[in-house]
Amino acid sequence: MSTAWTARYALRTKGITSSQIRELLKVAQRPGMISFAGGLPAPEVFPIERFEEACHKVLSQQAALALQYGATEGYEPLRELIANNMARYGIKAQVENVLITSGSQQALDLIGKLFINAGDRVLVEAPTYLGALQAFNVYGAEYVSVPVDDDGLLTNLVEKPLRSGPKFMYVLPNFQNPAGTTLSEGRRHELVLLADKYGIPIVEDDPYGQLRYEGEHLSPLVVLDRENLRQDNGYSIGNVIYLSTFSKTLAPGLRLGWIVAPPEIISKLAQLKQGADLHTSTFTQFVAYEVARDGFLDKHVKLIRQIYRERRDVMLQALRENFPPTVTWTHPHGGLFLWVTLPEGLDMQAIFQSAVEHNVAFVPGNSFYANDPHEGSRHMRLNFSNAAPEQIREGIGRLATAVKSHMAASIPVELPLGV
Amino acid sequence: MSTAWTARYALRTKGITSSQIRELLKVAQRPGMISFAGGLPAPEVFPIERFEEACHKVLSQQAALALQYGATEGYEPLRELIANNMARYGIKAQVENVLITSGSQQALDLIGKLFINAGDRVLVEAPTYLGALQAFNVYGAEYVSVPVDDDGLLTNLVEKPLRSGPKFMYVLPNFQNPAGTTLSEGRRHELVLLADKYGIPIVEDDPYGQLRYEGEHLSPLVVLDRENLRQDNGYSIGNVIYLSTFSKTLAPGLRLGWIVAPPEIISKLAQLKQGADLHTSTFTQFVAYEVARDGFLDKHVKLIRQIYRERRDVMLQALRENFPPTVTWTHPHGGLFLWVTLPEGLDMQAIFQSAVEHNVAFVPGNSFYANDPHEGSRHMRLNFSNAAPEQIREGIGRLATAVKSHMAASIPVELPLGV
Repeated sequence: MSTAWTARYALRTKGITSSQIRELLKVAQRPGMISFAGGLPAPEVFPIERFEEACHKVLSQQAALALQYGATEGYEPLRELIANNMARYGIKAQVENVLITSGSQQALDLIGKLFINAGDRVLVEAPTYLGALQAFNVYGAEYVSVPVDDDGLLTNLVEKPLRSGPKFMYVLPNFQNPAGTTLSEGRRHELVLLADKYGIPIVEDDPYGQLRYEGEHLSPLVVLDRENLRQDNGYSIGNVIYLSTFSKTLAPGLRLGWIVAPPEIISKLAQLKQGADLHTSTFTQFVAYEVARDGFLDKHVKLIRQIYRERRDVMLQALRENFPPTVTWTHPHGGLFLWVTLPEGLDMQAIFQSAVEHNVAFVPGNSFYANDPHEGSRHMRLNFSNAAPEQIREGIGRLATAVKSHMAASIPVELPLGV
Repeated sequence: MSTAWTARYALRTKGITSSQIRELLKVAQRPGMISFAGGLPAPEVFPIERFEEACHKVLSQQAALALQYGATEGYEPLRELIANNMARYGIKAQVENVLITSGSQQALDLIGKLFINAGDRVLVEAPTYLGALQAFNVYGAEYVSVPVDDDGLLTNLVEKPLRSGPKFMYVLPNFQNPAGTTLSEGRRHELVLLADKYGIPIVEDDPYGQLRYEGEHLSPLVVLDRENLRQDNGYSIGNVIYLSTFSKTLAPGLRLGWIVAPPEIISKLAQLKQGADLHTSTFTQFVAYEVARDGFLDKHVKLIRQIYRERRDVMLQALRENFPPTVTWTHPHGGLFLWVTLPEGLDMQAIFQSAVEHNVAFVPGNSFYANDPHEGSRHMRLNFSNAAPEQIREGIGRLATAVKSHMAASIPVELPLGV
């Protein structure tokens, strides 16, 4: 149907393409399917009773405020709780450094809106979070991408692209989505110094930072950026905008994330947020505050770590048992995802089809590359947080069957039968 | 503090100015202040017990879904409830015509994102909803504005601006914010025909439509647009995108609004919404559905009408009792606002200051004009939904004292003392 509307789309819609993942997640919801495709938390870890208590408390004591319009910047006690909570990770934020967003996704949209003009380049990891590309594409972003290895972004390859003057760098230092890799301590320092040297700021996206299953916590870039100031060595600070969320620690259905930035940036972002949705739901903010307060969040995160660590280990074990040595995968120290690399020469779309026929789903790697989807053609992203251990074992078995059928087919048949 | 960020704002930020209303609402929150400034529902009408039951039901029966990620388009039972609910207002929508948004404000942002290129003109009413201007400004909108009178937008003045090819018209037909006026039946027909004649579509913003306190319900533009089709008279349909919200009927703290549009527009908007916030809180959607279902919403709206009608009447009565005949105001048939016009030659900023000194707040009219703030210099927007009747009487008394002090001062003193 053609209406007066349909001829009138803005140039901006050139950035909109039907997301492959959207279609894919529909497939993944079919009955009987074991899905490693989404990035969903395990519903078993939602603290339902605590939510019930919180809703009751909020509605019986504060309904007139919790159901009313609220401040664009967010519910002040929640902003304070977030600031205090981050302090134990070394992030020194005051209330005025924190803007509550409607999920971390809105933080990416507001950052795109505030900083990206059509044609501006953003330096991203290859691979990187698809949702960030979707958010930035709308504003006409172009990309320079730098590969990651097991120690995260290859900082030795960053300097040349920085000279070409990207607007900012977008980095996921902890248990990256999709690759599951973590930026090493040394590279973190390097990156912050490079940002300062070239005057190219950093968006540090950290949805998974608290979900570490092994190894030591590493300093966020925003902390290293501040330490430079404390050393009074001439570095400027405030080069890092930090993002996080309650989606992986409380519940994604709340749609509660936050931005940490210098107050004058928060103020600009808040003005844009006002035009975007006035403010994030006061009700979910009040409820999240009552759920998280008095140390509950910390205790709960420990429980999640335990459950997800087990699932990660089960998946790693199942991969070892089911796949030949020509197939490799990352060993994530936290987060929700691992990244499988298949031998060259296989047809990933065909493998995906076979997997679906075997009732198991994943996300093909090509969705996660800003410039050349072909770079992802040997990769699969597997989520290990959502399915129960028994399902993970069964699902990896199915996946191996699907993949191996294609590996067998791709072996050149040169020998005559019987040899 | 200057950082690598602050030099890097996008051109888009030229549209961001610190909102006068934001500052103003801070003043309005001072203790002792009677505020007619906000657009806040009365907290007394929030159906708190029903919310408690709904939260309990959702968390005890559906927590795994209600706290999880959800579909970008929204929770299907809620979309269906909305479609059914609108049917009684003649709006024939299917589930696929409804997109749930994070408040109506997000609907405006998504529409701006989908349709406005920098320099595009939007036809708006003078005065119009400030939040729409904020949403559209970010995308570089320019405006042609057409005045309203007691029968709403002056459709006889619309044809000439339509010839200049605006991207769309943005209209609030019912109990308009800020003026409180309603577009007459005749002008509604005219406007829909003009939209069709010039191929200029309409965004119909209807947050208050259900809150009518007198007179007959008038057909929404989206319905008249469809009726043209039924008559098979050669008109195209789908020229009207319709917006509404639960903010005024359930609670604004939920941040739940919706867009009604042809499916291919909904699909584009949903793709943009995915990049903007993935989806609106599943939890608030589940809760709103449980609150609204089984006829509760209709019953509740009747209660709200009764309470707000009384408050409107108290305010109208107080205005008559306190102000001289040189001061006039609109008589809104519904909604939350009325619009006061003062005699020429007064200094509205000075009056606002005096009002605040008398502990009463309102919004000066100049915020509501897209092109020439000066047009609003004789006007005050007064909200009558938030304050209790006793407060309204007291507040209008204070306001009259403040205004009259300026009116007296502006009378030329020509007679010698003693005469």
